Amino acid sequence: MGVHRRSAASYTFDHVGIRSAAAVVGPKEGHGPLASYFDRIWTSELNNHVSSEVAERALLTEAQSLALDKVGENWAHVDWVVGGDLLDQLIATDFAAREHQRPLIGMFAACAVFAESLGLGALAIEGGGPKMVLAGACSHHLSAERQFRYPIELGYQRTPTAGWTSTAAGACLLSYLDAMNSGDVAIEAATFGRVVDWGSKNPNDMSTAMAPAAFDTIKQHLDDLGRDITYYDQVYTGDLGVLGVKLVDALAQKEKEGFNWSERLNDCGRSLYDIDKQDVHNGGSGPGCSASVFSGFLYRQLQTQQFQRILLVSTGALFSPTSYQQGESIPCIAHAVAIVRHN
Amino acid sequence: MGVHRRSAASYTFDHVGIRSAAAVVGPKEGHGPLASYFDRIWTSELNNHVSSEVAERALLTEAQSLALDKVGENWAHVDWVVGGDLLDQLIATDFAAREHQRPLIGMFAACAVFAESLGLGALAIEGGGPKMVLAGACSHHLSAERQFRYPIELGYQRTPTAGWTSTAAGACLLSYLDAMNSGDVAIEAATFGRVVDWGSKNPNDMSTAMAPAAFDTIKQHLDDLGRDITYYDQVYTGDLGVLGVKLVDALAQKEKEGFNWSERLNDCGRSLYDIDKQDVHNGGSGPGCSASVFSGFLYRQLQTQQFQRILLVSTGALFSPTSYQQGESIPCIAHAVAIVRHN
Repeated sequence: MGVHRRSAASYTFDHVGIRSAAAVVGPKEGHGPLASYFDRIWTSELNNHVSSEVAERALLTEAQSLALDKVGENWAHVDWVVGGDLLDQLIATDFAAREHQRPLIGMFAACAVFAESLGLGALAIEGGGPKMVLAGACSHHLSAERQFRYPIELGYQRTPTAGWTSTAAGACLLSYLDAMNSGDVAIEAATFGRVVDWGSKNPNDMSTAMAPAAFDTIKQHLDDLGRDITYYDQVYTGDLGVLGVKLVDALAQKEKEGFNWSERLNDCGRSLYDIDKQDVHNGGSGPGCSASVFSGFLYRQLQTQQFQRILLVSTGALFSPTSYQQGESIPCIAHAVAIVRHN
Repeated sequence: MGVHRRSAASYTFDHVGIRSAAAVVGPKEGHGPLASYFDRIWTSELNNHVSSEVAERALLTEAQSLALDKVGENWAHVDWVVGGDLLDQLIATDFAAREHQRPLIGMFAACAVFAESLGLGALAIEGGGPKMVLAGACSHHLSAERQFRYPIELGYQRTPTAGWTSTAAGACLLSYLDAMNSGDVAIEAATFGRVVDWGSKNPNDMSTAMAPAAFDTIKQHLDDLGRDITYYDQVYTGDLGVLGVKLVDALAQKEKEGFNWSERLNDCGRSLYDIDKQDVHNGGSGPGCSASVFSGFLYRQLQTQQFQRILLVSTGALFSPTSYQQGESIPCIAHAVAIVRHN
């Protein structure tokens, strides 16, 4: 037992399993290419809740509860709930916690909060702290629009670089395992990012703002662990979308001759929707994006051995309407977790 | 090495020292009874910064840098910066992180974030993760007013139960110590709270909303560790103020015959100002309140043996203007850290 410190940013673990994962999404996400992997698909954005904020917290609660149900666990065995969302003062995560009554570790890293929560939960478990951690994140298209943009009724035209905040939640149940057995899916490493800000100020183009942060964390991770990107079957960024993946690939090529990441790079936001047909422009975004794509799709790909090793790199833009209105640029961060299936 | 798990909520540590602490405050706080304990007192709320948001992040950066300077450390040796603030999307903590470029673990627990960060930082260090963690929190009166209340220029009348969001930041440098020596100040235990919501809906009375959460966490802590409140020289809640301390005391008396906490209970928000003369009504609040009172005053009281053992219980109200406008009640949380001086 005990965390292995590989650098200030990177840590490896031997005993942290992901016992189960669950994802609940909205109707638009349920019409996308990953539909068959989600545990539950709502037939409307509000699903009979009185507001999008109440709907968002319900989405999270459903994902958390399903993750427990799948392995016959109950809330009383959960030591910590770790996670966050994008709403001011984290009200989705906070209000959901009124129901479950477990110790709550609230995190904020914008859309990077899912990988941050997995990484921190894993580190806490490996260090001998909590035995079982329920890590989760969520977002809701309508509550994000209300908070960050314009009234839905306005029907404003979005730019080609704009992302679509997903209505989605994902949760993973992490627990301490004495030994890894064949078939166990485990969090093997985490790399915690630093803030990267290249001066981008366009709130309708998060890809350009976030790509340098994603590149920085992936490079840090590979350097710290002495790995090449081919160590992973796939590296999934959080919500860089169509444009962002190209930018990370370009940054890698610029960094070093022979760095060819394109075959290994993928993105949760690009995968969540049918980009050509669903009018989402650059792709999905929001904390629920990487949370649901991992907890629904990627976790199952690991379980069924489609993938053996993946690196999930959730990406976040750390600005607010206030900082934007004050003319500030957009600081970004990316946190990474390496998830492997034991043979 | 290794965290001792005492319950889902409570953990104890043997190797986490607080090597230094620093607090920077605004002019009003600098006219309060703790003035002589603060490292730096600004002579104006903005201190020549262009906005209160920029001022708030500068306040945090100054406290963080001073904590390092005091022990001759530099940023390159800091593994993690852990902490948060009250602004939407954590912009004080996030933007400050553009400068230091260290791995950032963003936390949110409203005004409870300082104890949450100390507890989580301690657990991560004890578990063999980061060696050195800089934990901090901040708030600024003017940026909080802008975000949560009315324009300052309106000069609205506050209620007697209203708190005064402090212009203050505090930071502590935590590091792994092989063995404790005489004079070392250490984080010996942490208890992570659950969300408590008794249905209070009055945004001008955080005391009534938060007191049950503070009581819940203190009781959990004492039960988990088999301690009586007299184990501590003083228990300092975060920002319950004059009214809130009385409520926690009343809850203790109601809980069990003979529970008399009044002589041990104190509050950072009540201590930060001269309640009778400084027109702060119920007392100070904001994440910077417990951060600065601990990092300025309490840490020195431990160093100089005025206190041997204290329990810091930062308290947070987890609501937003949106949740308030939607008629929701105010969920609250309290996180506790036990801090001791070794003889």
